[in-house]
Amino acid sequence: MQSFQPPRRVLMGPGPSDVSPRVLAALARPTIGHLDPEFQKLMEEIKTALQRLFNAPDHACVPLPAPGTAGMEAAIMNLLEPGDRAVVAVNGAFGGRMADMAGRAGATVVTVDHEWGQPVDADRVAAALAEAPTKVLAFVHAETSTGVRSDAATLCGLARKHGALSIVDCVTSLGGISVDAAAWDADIVYSGTQKCLSAPPGLSPIAISKRAQAAITGRKEKVRNWLLDFNLLMSYWGGEGGRTYHHTAPINALYGLHESLVVLFEEGVQASTVRHARTHEALVAGLEAAGLKMLVDEKHRLPQLNTVIVPDGIDEAAVRAHALKTWDLELGAGLGPLKGKVWRIGLMGASATPWHVRLCLTALCEALAAQGLKVDTSAVLAASDARLAG
Amino acid sequence: MQSFQPPRRVLMGPGPSDVSPRVLAALARPTIGHLDPEFQKLMEEIKTALQRLFNAPDHACVPLPAPGTAGMEAAIMNLLEPGDRAVVAVNGAFGGRMADMAGRAGATVVTVDHEWGQPVDADRVAAALAEAPTKVLAFVHAETSTGVRSDAATLCGLARKHGALSIVDCVTSLGGISVDAAAWDADIVYSGTQKCLSAPPGLSPIAISKRAQAAITGRKEKVRNWLLDFNLLMSYWGGEGGRTYHHTAPINALYGLHESLVVLFEEGVQASTVRHARTHEALVAGLEAAGLKMLVDEKHRLPQLNTVIVPDGIDEAAVRAHALKTWDLELGAGLGPLKGKVWRIGLMGASATPWHVRLCLTALCEALAAQGLKVDTSAVLAASDARLAG
Repeated sequence: MQSFQPPRRVLMGPGPSDVSPRVLAALARPTIGHLDPEFQKLMEEIKTALQRLFNAPDHACVPLPAPGTAGMEAAIMNLLEPGDRAVVAVNGAFGGRMADMAGRAGATVVTVDHEWGQPVDADRVAAALAEAPTKVLAFVHAETSTGVRSDAATLCGLARKHGALSIVDCVTSLGGISVDAAAWDADIVYSGTQKCLSAPPGLSPIAISKRAQAAITGRKEKVRNWLLDFNLLMSYWGGEGGRTYHHTAPINALYGLHESLVVLFEEGVQASTVRHARTHEALVAGLEAAGLKMLVDEKHRLPQLNTVIVPDGIDEAAVRAHALKTWDLELGAGLGPLKGKVWRIGLMGASATPWHVRLCLTALCEALAAQGLKVDTSAVLAASDARLAG
Repeated sequence: MQSFQPPRRVLMGPGPSDVSPRVLAALARPTIGHLDPEFQKLMEEIKTALQRLFNAPDHACVPLPAPGTAGMEAAIMNLLEPGDRAVVAVNGAFGGRMADMAGRAGATVVTVDHEWGQPVDADRVAAALAEAPTKVLAFVHAETSTGVRSDAATLCGLARKHGALSIVDCVTSLGGISVDAAAWDADIVYSGTQKCLSAPPGLSPIAISKRAQAAITGRKEKVRNWLLDFNLLMSYWGGEGGRTYHHTAPINALYGLHESLVVLFEEGVQASTVRHARTHEALVAGLEAAGLKMLVDEKHRLPQLNTVIVPDGIDEAAVRAHALKTWDLELGAGLGPLKGKVWRIGLMGASATPWHVRLCLTALCEALAAQGLKVDTSAVLAASDARLAG
C-alpha cells in the first residue's frame, strides 16, 4: 500500500467539478479542534456567508457534515413525522429519492410524477396540495439527473398558499443560477459543495426558516435521525451562550468550504451566475454546430448541467471512455431512464470557463469522428467562440 | 471575509489529534470523480486496509462519509427495527447516545447503567440479555468521555451466547489499543478518523459481519436512514460488477484517510499500540509525580485518553485556558457528570509522542503553579523521562 497520487482530470460531469488550487491549499492547513475559539469564529463566518449566498437572512444556515444527500435527508426527517402528508414532485432521480426518504420518515407520500426532462408542473402540484392537508411540499430546483430547472418561486408560493412547508433541493443550483430563499419564502433549502461551489464533496449547506424551526421544535416524536436532528445540531452550531457537543465537525473540509466561499464572493455571486450562463451558451452553440441536440427545452435548461442526446448509432460509453483516455476529461452518463441516451456535461464553478467548453467540444468531436460521424471541429469551435464573443 | 489561517495548535484533547504533514498534503491533491476508475482502486485499497486494521477479513469494511457518530447511527439503525429488543451498556456519554439512537430506531431499549469511570460489567449485561430475546447488544470499547476500556471479547461472547448481534464502538480505540473483530466475533465495529488514525474528522470506518449483513438484508421494514442504509451503500461500495450511484463520496477526505493508513502500516499496527502504551505510562508517571490522580483504575485505563482528577481548589477551565494561551496546547474538558472534575488528555496517533508528553506536563505544572499549587516541573519531567527510558 503506497501513497495515492491522483491522475490529472478535467471534471465536466455532474459533480464533483474542478477544485481550484486555492481551495485545495486550504484543505491542507493544520487541523485545529472543533471547540477551539478560532474554529468557532470560522464557523460563524461560514454561517453568515451561507445566509448571504442562499439570500436567507432570517434562516438558520449551517453546513451539515456529510454529502448533499444529508441535506435532503435532514430536511425530510426533521419536518416529517408518522401520519404527516407529503407531496413530492418527481421529475428525475433526486425527486424519487426524496419520496423514498419521506416514506422512511413515516409520512404518507403523494408523488406528482413527470417525464424525465420536464420541469415540475405547478398546476398538478397545486391539485395534489388541494386534495388534503399537507405538511410538506418537496421538489428539486435543479435536477442533476436531467438538467432541468423548475420554478422555485411559484412552487414555494403554492406551498404557502396551502399551508405546507417547502423543501427545495438546490444541490446543483447554488452558485450557478439564482437561489433566493427570502424571495421564494422557502422553508428548507440545501445544497452540496462539489457542484457550483467547486469545493470537494462531503458537506451539505442548509438553510432553515423560522417556520420550519418552529415545526421541528414542536414535533411529537423524536427525529428518526440523530446525527441530522436539528434540535441537537442547533445547540452545537448555535454560537451564542456556548456550544453543546454533538459531533466532531469535519474541520479541514470546512476550511475548504470557507475558501470556496471567499473565492465566490471575490468574483461576486451575480458575476458567477452570468459566467455560468455565458459558458453554457457557448457550449450549446458548439454542440448544435456539431449537429447534436439538447434533451431539455431551452427555457428550462440549467446552464451548469447540460444533457445532450446521444445520436442514433453512437456508442455513448465509448465517447466518454475516449474523452477520459485521450483528454483526461470526465463527462457524465445518463441515469435511470436516460442511461445510454444522454451525456451529462457539467459547467460548474471552476469548470465553467471557455477553456473547459473548448476542451469538451474538441474531445466530443474527436470521439464522434472515431465512430464515423463526420464533424468539423474547427467550425464547431468557431461557432462556440462566436457565441461567447457576441 | 478573508482566507482562514488556523493558529498553531498542539492537539491533546479527546480528538481531533495532530494530523501529520503527510496526511495534510494528501488532502490537497486534486479532486477526481467518485466514479473514476482510479478512485475505485483507491476505495478498494481503503476497504482492504480497513479489513486488516479491524482484523475483520470476513467483514464488509467501508468508510462512511460522515463523522464517527455516523458509524454508531448506521450500526443501530441498520440492525434494529420497531419491536426489537436492544441491550445497551451505558458507562459514559457515548453509551447514552447509543441508547437514544436505538429508541429512534423504534427498538425497546434496556440500558445497563454504570457509574462514569467504570468499565462495563459483564455479569449485569449477561443478566439483561437473559431476561428476554434480544436482537442487539451495544457497548463502547473505549469510552472517550471517561477514558475507560471495556472487555470487548467477553461482551461480544455474551451476545453470541444469547443469540444477539454485537455493536462495538471503537471510535477511540482503533489504532491505539488492540481491536480484533475476528477474535471477538463482533458483528458491527466502527471508528472515526480523528483519534488514533490522526486524519481529520469527517469519516467513519465500519466493519459489518456476514451475520449482520444477513440481518440487514432480511429486515421487514426499510432502514429509517437513507444515507446510511447498508442495502444501498453496499451497491455503491461493492466493487464487483460495477457500482450503483448512491451518494458522492468525500474524495479528498478519503485521500487523507488512505494516507493515514499508509502511515500506520509503515509503523506497524502493533508498534503503534506499543507507542501509545509507553507514552501513556510516561504521562501518568509525570502526573503522579505532580501529585495528580487518575480517574480510572489502572487496569481499565485507555492509554490514548487520560482522565485526570482536578485537585480541590483548582479552577479546571483556567488550567486549559492557560495551556491554550501560553502553549497553543488543547486539552479536553470533562463531559456530563465529569464536567469541571477532570481533564481529558489525549495521546492519540501523531499526538502520542514523548514530545507531547513533556509539553503537556510542562504546561500543566505551570498552570497549576499559577493557581498556587507548588509543583517541581523538573522533577515531574524527570519522573516521566525515567518511565519512558525504563
